[in-house]
Amino acid sequence: MGENVGAAARAMKNFGLAQLRLIAPKFEWPNDRAQMLASGAGDILQTATLHADAAGGLAGFNLVLATTARGRDIPREVLTPAEAAARLRDAAHRGLKTAILFGGERAGLDNDEISLCDALITIPTAEFSSLNLGQAVLLLGYEWLKSADATPPSRIRQTIAMPATRAELIGLFEHLEQELDAAQFFFPAAKKGAMVRNMRAMILRSGLTDQQARTVRGMIVALVRNKYRGKT
Amino acid sequence: MGENVGAAARAMKNFGLAQLRLIAPKFEWPNDRAQMLASGAGDILQTATLHADAAGGLAGFNLVLATTARGRDIPREVLTPAEAAARLRDAAHRGLKTAILFGGERAGLDNDEISLCDALITIPTAEFSSLNLGQAVLLLGYEWLKSADATPPSRIRQTIAMPATRAELIGLFEHLEQELDAAQFFFPAAKKGAMVRNMRAMILRSGLTDQQARTVRGMIVALVRNKYRGKT
Repeated sequence: MGENVGAAARAMKNFGLAQLRLIAPKFEWPNDRAQMLASGAGDILQTATLHADAAGGLAGFNLVLATTARGRDIPREVLTPAEAAARLRDAAHRGLKTAILFGGERAGLDNDEISLCDALITIPTAEFSSLNLGQAVLLLGYEWLKSADATPPSRIRQTIAMPATRAELIGLFEHLEQELDAAQFFFPAAKKGAMVRNMRAMILRSGLTDQQARTVRGMIVALVRNKYRGKT
Repeated sequence: MGENVGAAARAMKNFGLAQLRLIAPKFEWPNDRAQMLASGAGDILQTATLHADAAGGLAGFNLVLATTARGRDIPREVLTPAEAAARLRDAAHRGLKTAILFGGERAGLDNDEISLCDALITIPTAEFSSLNLGQAVLLLGYEWLKSADATPPSRIRQTIAMPATRAELIGLFEHLEQELDAAQFFFPAAKKGAMVRNMRAMILRSGLTDQQARTVRGMIVALVRNKYRGKT
């Protein structure tokens, strides 16, 4: 259906893929419903090319991988999406033209189409699952972008913030401990050392910035304000 | 919109996720359009629970990660989807209750909602991209399943086929070389050694099974048939 091609175009756009080839579509082209679902990826539909069969659509490519969910009767190499993306990326770096072949919604790819491809890709899913075309394109596009993505697994998103200096943290430790001492928080006295070490570890683990350490000190000042007021 | 929740349920189903919580939805619930798009994931919609706000919806969880596309003014840890999946998987193994929080289609999550989460997840995308809710759920679900998936990056899908024995391959080599010799293919004779080594390497690289090696020999027999006929 046209909708599926629209969703596929939108999925491609999200991951920087631009060149779409349609092989023997069973709907009219250009297609209004594809346009509707493509939202923002209309340029991909406009430059898409039409081909009568897989041999024609794939003619110019050096490496072609085919997505398939089902087992096949012929022994073929089957790749995970991540491994497929790595191979496509590597081939593209060497100047080769690369493509991923997706099957239609119902029938998938037939054995003749698969026989034109270098290897198969199977997306790992739970049992009784079914991915539609847009979903399959999205996952392969995602792995394609990921294969060249250098984002570290974990990072702290911040503009100017830096982890607090020891001086700022020690200032906070001593301020807090002094006020807690004054409030007779450390009881029994013999346990004070362990309690202080626990508190300090807790604060260190929270990874405060200088600004945040000062904010916590402001909170302490605010919390003890009434006590001093009461005394005057 | 209800459609987006339906697509999200379908995405969850594909990767073995079952428990859906809806926080202050702006559409009626149960929702017909959600049902329509869920196709096959209706059970997830039926057991979904409704919550008035994020604090209520997240109350029972030990680890909560929030998906967000935009930069935030507060320094928070930001994870890739793969790292997020690894942490959720690890926490689940330790018996913790874990959740991923997704924002609404337009507005996303607000800062108050994000302040309830342990870390953020950002999906790497191309510039000027926009993922809808169903797509975001699909990608996180995929990484979740992948984090426990032991599929090797590359494998040969076959039922009974095994790589050919050396005997079968050598039989093929000798058969082919003998017929080519008879057809005066090796010219000049001085190059025969190198040509044979090239051909053998080409055949070995194709990773034939015993059955396939026999098929190739059958092809050779067929190709030379006319020649022998001509002679009789």
